Amino acid sequence: MTTSRMRAEIDEQPDALARTIEALLPRASDVGLLARDTRQVLFIARGSSDNAAVYGRYLVESHTGRLATLAAPSIATAYRSRVDLSGVLAVAISQSGKTEEIVETLAWAADCGARTVAVTNGAASPLAEAAEVALITEAGDELAVPATKTYTTQLAALAVLALGLGARVDRADLRRAPDEVRRLIAETEAHEALPAIVAELAAVQGVVVSGRGIAFGTALELALKIKEACYLHAMGLSYADLLHGPIAVVDERTPALLVAADSGPTLPGTIALARRVRGAGARAYGIGGGDGLAGACSRALPGPDLPEWVAPLGLIVPGQLVVEALARDLGVDPDVPRGLNKVTQTD
Amino acid sequence: MTTSRMRAEIDEQPDALARTIEALLPRASDVGLLARDTRQVLFIARGSSDNAAVYGRYLVESHTGRLATLAAPSIATAYRSRVDLSGVLAVAISQSGKTEEIVETLAWAADCGARTVAVTNGAASPLAEAAEVALITEAGDELAVPATKTYTTQLAALAVLALGLGARVDRADLRRAPDEVRRLIAETEAHEALPAIVAELAAVQGVVVSGRGIAFGTALELALKIKEACYLHAMGLSYADLLHGPIAVVDERTPALLVAADSGPTLPGTIALARRVRGAGARAYGIGGGDGLAGACSRALPGPDLPEWVAPLGLIVPGQLVVEALARDLGVDPDVPRGLNKVTQTD
Repeated sequence: MTTSRMRAEIDEQPDALARTIEALLPRASDVGLLARDTRQVLFIARGSSDNAAVYGRYLVESHTGRLATLAAPSIATAYRSRVDLSGVLAVAISQSGKTEEIVETLAWAADCGARTVAVTNGAASPLAEAAEVALITEAGDELAVPATKTYTTQLAALAVLALGLGARVDRADLRRAPDEVRRLIAETEAHEALPAIVAELAAVQGVVVSGRGIAFGTALELALKIKEACYLHAMGLSYADLLHGPIAVVDERTPALLVAADSGPTLPGTIALARRVRGAGARAYGIGGGDGLAGACSRALPGPDLPEWVAPLGLIVPGQLVVEALARDLGVDPDVPRGLNKVTQTD
Repeated sequence: MTTSRMRAEIDEQPDALARTIEALLPRASDVGLLARDTRQVLFIARGSSDNAAVYGRYLVESHTGRLATLAAPSIATAYRSRVDLSGVLAVAISQSGKTEEIVETLAWAADCGARTVAVTNGAASPLAEAAEVALITEAGDELAVPATKTYTTQLAALAVLALGLGARVDRADLRRAPDEVRRLIAETEAHEALPAIVAELAAVQGVVVSGRGIAFGTALELALKIKEACYLHAMGLSYADLLHGPIAVVDERTPALLVAADSGPTLPGTIALARRVRGAGARAYGIGGGDGLAGACSRALPGPDLPEWVAPLGLIVPGQLVVEALARDLGVDPDVPRGLNKVTQTD
């Protein structure tokens, strides 16, 4: 089979990230100004954008001293409840900017007293027009149904958001991310573990994907990609939630995929989890987490050489390459999974 | 096989609920007093307690005008970040009250300026002692690893919490819940759909469990039970998230279990989802949702005759009976799933 549109869009990520970071870094101060009288962040999103929001919530909470949580859109769209959102910075994330549920929930948030930000690839979309500050990602058109470059550019926009909220980090690390993603794509493609992991995953019933803290959103996104492009049962779970029950699912036919940055306070627990998974007789595949995680796993792919706060921009990339190859191996066209459209309309 | 301890504890729920509601209804005013200077709720929980928290968050947001969201414990325990929690009512939920991660996160919340409530079955537990107001559930000892009566009594405590926060509902409906659960256990046991659903689920690879809004927590809890007691791949997803990707997983070997109250604004969408699942060639099993959902599903079990706000106290019960019978059918002892302990310690 020839390579897919999804594969081409994975390769477009370094340029898309570079354009997005260049366009959005000067906007950090707009976010700071808008957020001046707010004390917390409420993310509004679905699907891959929701997984980006999970990165945003951990980044904001761990680095800016603000509470950051995820909204339940049905409170706005189904229950039509009025909730006190004074002091809240509502941040809606949508690739197209056209998903009515998200546009309606952001309008509801504004009605309830929140200040509003949009993160979208749709420059003239209803979502961009509804928000006080619109952070437009520069991913270009994305044609494959599984989001790749629109997802990683959303992460870049959320890194800028955190900078605008006063995160004490070095923005030079964000600027390094595009080149690091380029290097990582080449390194992953040439890595002997890639075809081995794909071949082994092609034979399993399901897979558990786990990560913690700032890497948790990456685990959720990788699990979603595996579900939508490979039709495999993939559960995305935090390290702690996995131990509360679902660890029972892991066995010789159900391996775990574990993702972690090369540093940070959640890495030791992820390494311990890899050992526990293997102790239960299951295979553990690592992405990132340095030599420590690689050594504890059955097979492993390196992650990006980036500090934890910005590592998710690269950490999903080896996972994208696994998913794309696995889909083709399973005879699925990764560009057009059954039952899905590029813009999902929910109410 | 003889019936299990889990089965006995399912039967103990009406009495456990009646004791809990009687003990806690007079405490609603304590919650109201403590919450006077707060504007929002932040739930802290893991596992089944986290699924209870999902009920709590939708109930509070839809009925009290307060924002209610879920905390990320690793922000406290791994990142040790200081977050501004002034104006926040932190509500920690733990069956045992001994999970260190939850106790530590509640203490962190207090340190960050939050007022604190504990919901626990452990009357003299560290969690009960750490909180300003402790809502002690009266479930009695629970010996089976899968939580049943400790979960439903947590829901009762959260209904009381919502009353304390000013929810405009009729508390007589809460008082009716224990008898309604008793009736529902008998009705489910005698229902022809129970053995048929169990027999069909015993042959599947995995299952998707979905619900929305106030019933979403029930879907998550049912999925967790299926994973931990039956080792099946079960994904708990909201209606909207299911349409954003994972709908691709549903097929002739992967049915959907759909839960809904007999009324409420999310019922029409759940019925539409049942039709969509069947249109994709998959079976849909309904729990609750009245004649509308039953008519759209391949097979269905009735839910409780309770209004939406308090329906989850009974809606999980047919699901518990399915899980217990399915576990025995699959040759698993539901009381002692592999890899799990009654009190999970995470850091």
